[in-house]
Amino acid sequence: MKSGEIARLLSVDLKGDGDTEIIGVADLGNAASTDLAFTESAEPIVSKAGLLIVPAGFPASASTPIIRTENPKLLFTRAAKLLVGQPAFRPGIHSSSHIAVSAKLGNVFVDANVIVDEHTRIGDDCSIYAGVMIGRHVEIGANTTIHPNCTIYDNSVIGSGCVLNAGVVIGAPGFGYVTDAEGKHHQFPQLGRVVIGDAVELGSNTCVDRGALGDTVIGSGTKIDNQVQVAHNVQIGKNVIIAAQTGISGSTVIEDNCVIGGQVGIGDHAVLRSGAIIGSQAGILPGKIVRPGIWWGTPVQPLAEYKRQNARVKGLDRLAMSLKEIKKTVDKLIGQG
Amino acid sequence: MKSGEIARLLSVDLKGDGDTEIIGVADLGNAASTDLAFTESAEPIVSKAGLLIVPAGFPASASTPIIRTENPKLLFTRAAKLLVGQPAFRPGIHSSSHIAVSAKLGNVFVDANVIVDEHTRIGDDCSIYAGVMIGRHVEIGANTTIHPNCTIYDNSVIGSGCVLNAGVVIGAPGFGYVTDAEGKHHQFPQLGRVVIGDAVELGSNTCVDRGALGDTVIGSGTKIDNQVQVAHNVQIGKNVIIAAQTGISGSTVIEDNCVIGGQVGIGDHAVLRSGAIIGSQAGILPGKIVRPGIWWGTPVQPLAEYKRQNARVKGLDRLAMSLKEIKKTVDKLIGQG
Amino acid sequence: MKSGEIARLLSVDLKGDGDTEIIGVADLGNAASTDLAFTESAEPIVSKAGLLIVPAGFPASASTPIIRTENPKLLFTRAAKLLVGQPAFRPGIHSSSHIAVSAKLGNVFVDANVIVDEHTRIGDDCSIYAGVMIGRHVEIGANTTIHPNCTIYDNSVIGSGCVLNAGVVIGAPGFGYVTDAEGKHHQFPQLGRVVIGDAVELGSNTCVDRGALGDTVIGSGTKIDNQVQVAHNVQIGKNVIIAAQTGISGSTVIEDNCVIGGQVGIGDHAVLRSGAIIGSQAGILPGKIVRPGIWWGTPVQPLAEYKRQNARVKGLDRLAMSLKEIKKTVDKLIGQG
Repeated sequence: MKSGEIARLLSVDLKGDGDTEIIGVADLGNAASTDLAFTESAEPIVSKAGLLIVPAGFPASASTPIIRTENPKLLFTRAAKLLVGQPAFRPGIHSSSHIAVSAKLGNVFVDANVIVDEHTRIGDDCSIYAGVMIGRHVEIGANTTIHPNCTIYDNSVIGSGCVLNAGVVIGAPGFGYVTDAEGKHHQFPQLGRVVIGDAVELGSNTCVDRGALGDTVIGSGTKIDNQVQVAHNVQIGKNVIIAAQTGISGSTVIEDNCVIGGQVGIGDHAVLRSGAIIGSQAGILPGKIVRPGIWWGTPVQPLAEYKRQNARVKGLDRLAMSLKEIKKTVDKLIGQG
Repeated sequence: MKSGEIARLLSVDLKGDGDTEIIGVADLGNAASTDLAFTESAEPIVSKAGLLIVPAGFPASASTPIIRTENPKLLFTRAAKLLVGQPAFRPGIHSSSHIAVSAKLGNVFVDANVIVDEHTRIGDDCSIYAGVMIGRHVEIGANTTIHPNCTIYDNSVIGSGCVLNAGVVIGAPGFGYVTDAEGKHHQFPQLGRVVIGDAVELGSNTCVDRGALGDTVIGSGTKIDNQVQVAHNVQIGKNVIIAAQTGISGSTVIEDNCVIGGQVGIGDHAVLRSGAIIGSQAGILPGKIVRPGIWWGTPVQPLAEYKRQNARVKGLDRLAMSLKEIKKTVDKLIGQG
Repeated sequence: MKSGEIARLLSVDLKGDGDTEIIGVADLGNAASTDLAFTESAEPIVSKAGLLIVPAGFPASASTPIIRTENPKLLFTRAAKLLVGQPAFRPGIHSSSHIAVSAKLGNVFVDANVIVDEHTRIGDDCSIYAGVMIGRHVEIGANTTIHPNCTIYDNSVIGSGCVLNAGVVIGAPGFGYVTDAEGKHHQFPQLGRVVIGDAVELGSNTCVDRGALGDTVIGSGTKIDNQVQVAHNVQIGKNVIIAAQTGISGSTVIEDNCVIGGQVGIGDHAVLRSGAIIGSQAGILPGKIVRPGIWWGTPVQPLAEYKRQNARVKGLDRLAMSLKEIKKTVDKLIGQG
């Protein structure tokens, strides 16, 4: 693709040669003369890239054509889609897959050894990869991709344009027990569903349990990393980001646009208000209401408080020494007295 | 099912209309006139539920039939089983599954693409879902359910009435290495088994490694949530509860009826005495013996100590200020002296 | 196998009867007269073992033949391989597996329901177990074992002599997004590969994401436990040990021979210098450079500092009381003044 054509398809201005042949994308350091690269700094740079996406204020160059934009990383992301593209969609159902007669599949790609059970509906342009097991009465929208070895339990609802990476488990019963007088644990009814919106992406081996008496809900545009645990009746809003290995306990509410780091633990029935940002490894107590802002530590505190407290703890040696000195001085005063 | 029949099947007294038609269960807020619901509070409530399970002292109502009981949540759990039930057990072996000739299967349901390898025995009324891989010399009791895409390594033993959710891995070699003089790591022999009792439930993507020279053991009635790691030679007692993403290191002993929160880390060779309750995200050092009671933090402390310490740390600002003032006073005294 | 033959095959000296028949391995307490066992202590012990591997200085015994060595656990590990061995390698491809015509497989064992997609190459003596899904253009060296239900995405490279336990996911897209002005998240290109060296072992349900614009790399001899998360563009050196449930964020570098405990969280772009040892549940901030030595806590500190700080915090009660007393004394002094 020529540099000028890329600019035209992205509806942006090109400064410099519009005939440079671009065939790939790369980071600045590794880019070759046929690669598109980007920088977020306005400082002039040396790069072998054939085309650069740069921020406003970046100086024009005689040798390399540039595209100036407010958000170079975002434009690079869009350009990469043009240049690299996805493998072509190949509709068809592999002969080794088992599709129930009552299931309704659109124009889909279904790979080998897939199971689709009774009364399940899958929209057009979906790709269901090998070894995926989809239960009964499941609904999947259009253009959703499910990677190998995922398991979707009965009654789950998944929207359009979603991506489930390998090993994801949707709709298993939640972890809720009632203990009898003899100490035996009886599973509380886990009868709800998982309802996932559109454009949701789930990382490998992530688990989303079905609700107990209501549903577990993940809003559209939310992106979840690998090995995350979403318990029964959790309500996650739209465009939320959740990094790897975070665990969210039952009935917790995470409002739109929250950002949650990795290995965070959130107790049950907590509420994260829209705009809350939670640092990695933080712990949120059950029932806690977390206001917008940046939060760290266990139990979570506003970042500034967390830092001040950390500094105080680090200063304990000095504080103890200072106390010792004062004590000595006071003892001397008493001696003089 | 009529309200009177439900009471009769549960062997409890009904106050009010015995002819109300009940077809489902719901929580108080969402219950319709054909739903059973429950409350744990004796305060009068407004609910559209057709039948209520309530604690002693809950006032009778003209409109809604009630069942009084000591533990409403437990009775509701039992009632829900009557009303909702499981999908009918459909014995049979799917033609796409591969069952070794030397394997002995009872009256079981085996879904598509299941592998059962040589000399493995599976009891009556088991359901083995699609994509499950069961190795050699495995023994599985009666009425156990194994959800899709689980892997059971050779020689594992699983009791009766167990539930393994999707993606569970049983019996993989433990993580034990001996390092040679050149820094290379050699796997220490991992020759033991996993032995799981009856009525054990394991959450999705949970892993239980086989023992090194002995066995890894999980006692009957124990319930384990999603993404939990149980290392080699761990001994877990009966009716233990372990929440999601907790990791238990090698050779640790967890006695009967312990309750362990989510994301807890337990070092190797620790011992949790029966009745120990461990708060989420807590860390237990290797070799630590944890007495009965509630424990929090890393390293774990009794909850009361953890709280006092937390308060002390939060009070450091005030303590530092107080020290400063005393210093000033003392300096003044010296100046006067 | 006779005790003398074992010593001969290991090229070590035997003290005592060379004709003792040994058929298995066990730990000291459970060993029978036909078992090999080991001890790392030079103290005399009572054991029924038929052959003992012991450290220098261990006293000779009339009843039990012994082998003295510098590292008894290492020699025991080697001896166990002789005695127990692996199940025989049975080359062949199960008829239910789907191997693309363009894939090139050596003399391999491929179990049921395996998918090997186009242009993928697998070396001699590999064992690929049931339900494994291998994408396109994947390269796998010789003598590598992939346990059931693993997923290997396109373009991944795996060396020789590796072991991937059940449920491992290699090469899924990394978790990188660019947010637009409306708060929508767009996946940054995830076009790199995963490149894994030789003799690498990965625990069950562990995930290794592919690089964004470069590769994610794991060096030869590195051993990784269950449920570990390795993000895009992470560079792990040789002979590294990583325990269960640890998460490593994007672009972090872990140099050769590091040892990382369980549930550790490592922020992005951190560097762990060769010889760094990280205690379980530790947290390493993004960009942090960790020198060789033992590190604990969140954020990580050298172990000695962590311990001193912990002691200081535990001593806060006493410190506060001491301050109170001084204040009282000072107040009295002022009163006298």
